[in-house]
Amino acid sequence: MKIDNKKYNSIWYDKKKDAIFIIDQTALPFKFKINKLNKFNDFIRAIKNMEVRGAPLIGVTAAYGMYFASKKSSNVKKLEYYGGLLIKTRPTAINLKWSVEKILSFLYASNLPQEDLSKVILEMANKIKDEDIRNCYQIGLNGSKIINKIYIKKNKKIVNILTHCNAGWLATVDWGTALAPIYYAKLKNKNKIHVWVDETRPRNQGANLTSFELNNQGVANTIIADNTGGLLMMKKKVDLCIVGADRITKDGSVINKIGTYLKALAAYENNIPFYVAIPYSTIDAKSNLPNDIEIEDRGGDELRYILGIDNKGNLKKVRIYSSNCKILNLGFDITPPKLITGYITEKGIFQNIKEFLIKN
Amino acid sequence: MKIDNKKYNSIWYDKKKDAIFIIDQTALPFKFKINKLNKFNDFIRAIKNMEVRGAPLIGVTAAYGMYFASKKSSNVKKLEYYGGLLIKTRPTAINLKWSVEKILSFLYASNLPQEDLSKVILEMANKIKDEDIRNCYQIGLNGSKIINKIYIKKNKKIVNILTHCNAGWLATVDWGTALAPIYYAKLKNKNKIHVWVDETRPRNQGANLTSFELNNQGVANTIIADNTGGLLMMKKKVDLCIVGADRITKDGSVINKIGTYLKALAAYENNIPFYVAIPYSTIDAKSNLPNDIEIEDRGGDELRYILGIDNKGNLKKVRIYSSNCKILNLGFDITPPKLITGYITEKGIFQNIKEFLIKN
Repeated sequence: MKIDNKKYNSIWYDKKKDAIFIIDQTALPFKFKINKLNKFNDFIRAIKNMEVRGAPLIGVTAAYGMYFASKKSSNVKKLEYYGGLLIKTRPTAINLKWSVEKILSFLYASNLPQEDLSKVILEMANKIKDEDIRNCYQIGLNGSKIINKIYIKKNKKIVNILTHCNAGWLATVDWGTALAPIYYAKLKNKNKIHVWVDETRPRNQGANLTSFELNNQGVANTIIADNTGGLLMMKKKVDLCIVGADRITKDGSVINKIGTYLKALAAYENNIPFYVAIPYSTIDAKSNLPNDIEIEDRGGDELRYILGIDNKGNLKKVRIYSSNCKILNLGFDITPPKLITGYITEKGIFQNIKEFLIKN
Repeated sequence: MKIDNKKYNSIWYDKKKDAIFIIDQTALPFKFKINKLNKFNDFIRAIKNMEVRGAPLIGVTAAYGMYFASKKSSNVKKLEYYGGLLIKTRPTAINLKWSVEKILSFLYASNLPQEDLSKVILEMANKIKDEDIRNCYQIGLNGSKIINKIYIKKNKKIVNILTHCNAGWLATVDWGTALAPIYYAKLKNKNKIHVWVDETRPRNQGANLTSFELNNQGVANTIIADNTGGLLMMKKKVDLCIVGADRITKDGSVINKIGTYLKALAAYENNIPFYVAIPYSTIDAKSNLPNDIEIEDRGGDELRYILGIDNKGNLKKVRIYSSNCKILNLGFDITPPKLITGYITEKGIFQNIKEFLIKN
């Protein structure tokens, strides 16, 4: 997708420099900054500080992290330790675990000679990245059919879609998950679309990233406080909700950015379809029922501090709440499957995850 | 109630100075600032800029505004015009309309000699203020019984109460509406209480005012993003929700700060009692069904700009979103009566508004 009319991926490998480059998402939309990652610890920092975020993208980033880990040690046991460090940076999103474990199981199974190890991990990481792009494109194509149906039913009047947080191309490598059907419907099917963008406190990924993405792709959108979606649904100003997810448990529960559950409840109450767009790697088929999932507590400072531009045009971090007030900052919530209309995946749209797991 | 251990009301009349004084709520919690209002336009500004806010308090403020209007003109027709200006400042809250109309109907009915007019309006305004304090105290007493029952049922373990926005003493003259039962239960009944405080975007009255109030009264509380309440209810970390309201329509629908509806849906889904605490004057008995109520659109800048303290300790306003992104900022939403467990009023607790209107 594009930023200022130039095509980008959110992450890429530069062969000449033997380094990974990422768009630093903590600086958006104020600054467009590209960070270079070429030491293992850069990857830990980039994921922890959310320079990269979004379940699929941190999966890809961790895969490249394993490549740089293999430069520190080619011992598979040691690599398992480094993989563990990567997994611990963000405990809720499953894709991170998925890609680290995919690489480790291959290494255990293949018993590669040490000199080939780094090369093979890099190839695997590149493959995970390319697969992510293909999957997201396919999610876009599959999900666009839902939008197109509504568009036709509304006699080609604007389709209003609500989304929470950022599950756009910046949360993946390209195209996105929740936003992919929107991009596809707009670019390929020429549907008229308007997106209600939840601000998504406390880190405001909706206002900072989703709105930024949509503006760069020419998709009409309006930022709203997270509190607003319920009224808009009641007033029939929303035709469809699409969100991404950080993990789907085997019963079909959706672990996604905190606040998703409230929107799903409102959609259910008002008979508005509520879809979750995810690649296969987000489904935790072995897992753990939702109550066993660790919900990341990210600390109070994410609510307490905020970045903005002062009246002199300088980027300033300000403290908006008292230093000694108590704050709880949980990153994700759980939306039970009964509130989900369907799961948009690269392999098709499914009404329940069991059906998906049986067929795939 | 207290600020730094000194007792205050949110508004008071100083006889010697013939002026009204208010605590400027736009400066809290960073600065404690008292504003003097002694010209009619001061009242328009104070209500519009939300130096005073909260349905009951703006009702009282408008009553005093009518007193200063009567110094500009003692013509009742002219006073009706000034009253109209006051009502227009905040179209959703009904108490404002209620107190202005109460004064005007008295003036029309009584046909007072011009020289007595100002004096009588001042007396009426003082009475409206005193009545507000008495009503809120009684709401506290009545509502405290609900808290006490839960406290006993939980074997005197901490009762967790979730509230949205600020319906504390700063939203009234003293005691508050939603917070009055909490203050009463803590001060008089010695119940152990912890309050989950919704940040309440975009103006953050929860984090800035409710948490500030509760800290000053020694009530344990934790600020959460508005997105968080659903998960906390699902995880049984909330025993009870209490909110205030800006207007109750005759079918019992609750017009309150945007986001209330989403919390009521989550409470209903998770079998958590959801109460609305209101004085009589918040019930719009003649009204208008919820769909006819004008929902105030407060403009994008409330989301776009935020006040905070920079690293040098200075109060700074920063712009957190791009100047040209589109923002919709609706101030209130509508919670249908089926989601409301009961209405806590100064006249008792009622399960539906029709019953209340018949009995009162």
